Amino acid sequence: MYIDNHRFLRTDVKGFDSWQDLIADSGVDAIYIATPTALKEEIAVVAAQSKKHVLVDKPFVTLESLQKITVACRENQVLFMDATHFVHHPRIATIKETMEESIGKIQAIRSAFYFPVSDRNNIRLNQELEPTGALGDLGWYNMRATVEFLAPNINLSQTSAKVERDAKTGAIVRACGMLAFDDDSTSTWDAGYTSGAVTMDLVLIGTKGIITLDDFVLDWVNSSVFKNPDLKAGFYLKNGLDTRADFKFIEVKSEQSSQVKMVENFADLVFNGVANSATNYCQVSEKTQALLDELYRCV
Amino acid sequence: MYIDNHRFLRTDVKGFDSWQDLIADSGVDAIYIATPTALKEEIAVVAAQSKKHVLVDKPFVTLESLQKITVACRENQVLFMDATHFVHHPRIATIKETMEESIGKIQAIRSAFYFPVSDRNNIRLNQELEPTGALGDLGWYNMRATVEFLAPNINLSQTSAKVERDAKTGAIVRACGMLAFDDDSTSTWDAGYTSGAVTMDLVLIGTKGIITLDDFVLDWVNSSVFKNPDLKAGFYLKNGLDTRADFKFIEVKSEQSSQVKMVENFADLVFNGVANSATNYCQVSEKTQALLDELYRCV
Repeated sequence: MYIDNHRFLRTDVKGFDSWQDLIADSGVDAIYIATPTALKEEIAVVAAQSKKHVLVDKPFVTLESLQKITVACRENQVLFMDATHFVHHPRIATIKETMEESIGKIQAIRSAFYFPVSDRNNIRLNQELEPTGALGDLGWYNMRATVEFLAPNINLSQTSAKVERDAKTGAIVRACGMLAFDDDSTSTWDAGYTSGAVTMDLVLIGTKGIITLDDFVLDWVNSSVFKNPDLKAGFYLKNGLDTRADFKFIEVKSEQSSQVKMVENFADLVFNGVANSATNYCQVSEKTQALLDELYRCV
Repeated sequence: MYIDNHRFLRTDVKGFDSWQDLIADSGVDAIYIATPTALKEEIAVVAAQSKKHVLVDKPFVTLESLQKITVACRENQVLFMDATHFVHHPRIATIKETMEESIGKIQAIRSAFYFPVSDRNNIRLNQELEPTGALGDLGWYNMRATVEFLAPNINLSQTSAKVERDAKTGAIVRACGMLAFDDDSTSTWDAGYTSGAVTMDLVLIGTKGIITLDDFVLDWVNSSVFKNPDLKAGFYLKNGLDTRADFKFIEVKSEQSSQVKMVENFADLVFNGVANSATNYCQVSEKTQALLDELYRCV
């Protein structure tokens, strides 16, 4: 039985032999769906229809598939949140609250998320389960940053993308491109599994200054991959002709990792009975997936 | 008279009242043409035809215009060099010599060059004199980095660009875009006058690692704008899951600024009688301008 082979060390946690059994259990309030992308929609829709709140890993197969989930969540008044952890680090709220004053209107976003994956047996290179490969898996973060930091009510006016596919599996292993919006703001981005080093750069170029993060996805200090308590989480602020010696580092401490904060925020919303419609998690998720869909159409 | 109003403090330096007089002087071996872009071709062509070596500021109006200069230089066996100073910093040679070993094949280049210019009377915003605005003036460096670091014999397969024009002058004040080449390598780039801070980021993403520079155009240590002798010139090297604490800084010292090195290298080639055909300065300049022309066609 699946559960006997995968039981948690904590034997006080109830296990199930199928996702259907899990969803049917009246003691379950919320479900974290971290299955391969191609398998998310069915589980999430059934979960929502069974009045379970859902935290669903990103990306989604298409916006259409995501909307089947978000519609089911809205109709059943359960919470939808996609599992994009970086936005739950308190520095993101700090940047958003202070950026108009510190860097003015953001004109251009530059982002890069490269994370080395070379094993062709890794699920990320399985086109059936992960149909958009690195474009969806990593590019999600570039697009989510674009949605988070550019103006809220802008429309895409130009899209370009280029992908590299793995010779053996055909999976998208690297992607880059450019988006432009009708307020003249732009987003240039790179994402891929194919480099020999991780890079997680985010640059917000504003009329009054520039904010940069070198660890925007998984902070170096406390995240599922990096644990460097001697480092600081936060962001750099540049103004005028600041050089490397002048860049100001604004520290924003977080007691927990952004992953833990994400689950806490999700649980708070569930426990406090905040109606799904009161959160914008459906909207930011749909906007992010819509950008990915447009990019995928270009390749 | 022009010369009386603009005479150098060094009175032992001969002055001229026109560029024609300067070129006609038999004591002049070489000319640095730093006029507005629209006025470069005529002066440079006449100079070359008069057997003067030419160091010509970038960018050029078009590749066609540049080629009138380079053809005249080849025909008259005089040296052509464009005044792109950053490539003369010794760290560029160090990166090129070591990058195959340190970061493998470069798949993607990311570059950003923003330099704040807000005065509408600045020549940079004069469309007649500087027809391609920030795309040519700053984007030149993004494109030159692309030519310098990607494989030499690749062809452009995809181009996209977006520009923002100044409401009053119509000049291009900001640009970004993406280039892809037939070996699957890519270049994403941003350039502009409109931010409140300078940024000069270059990222070379390779199969074995990543090289980054935060001052690729005008190094912080010793350049025409920045003088921070306490800083170090060089580049960062990242491998595997290196964090901010692990990035290796490879220092490459330079006794002179890259501007002085450029003039020294130019003078060495002139004095050592190296035929123009023996240098690749025509070729890299033409390749760079060809990329700019393709981008300008998109906007």
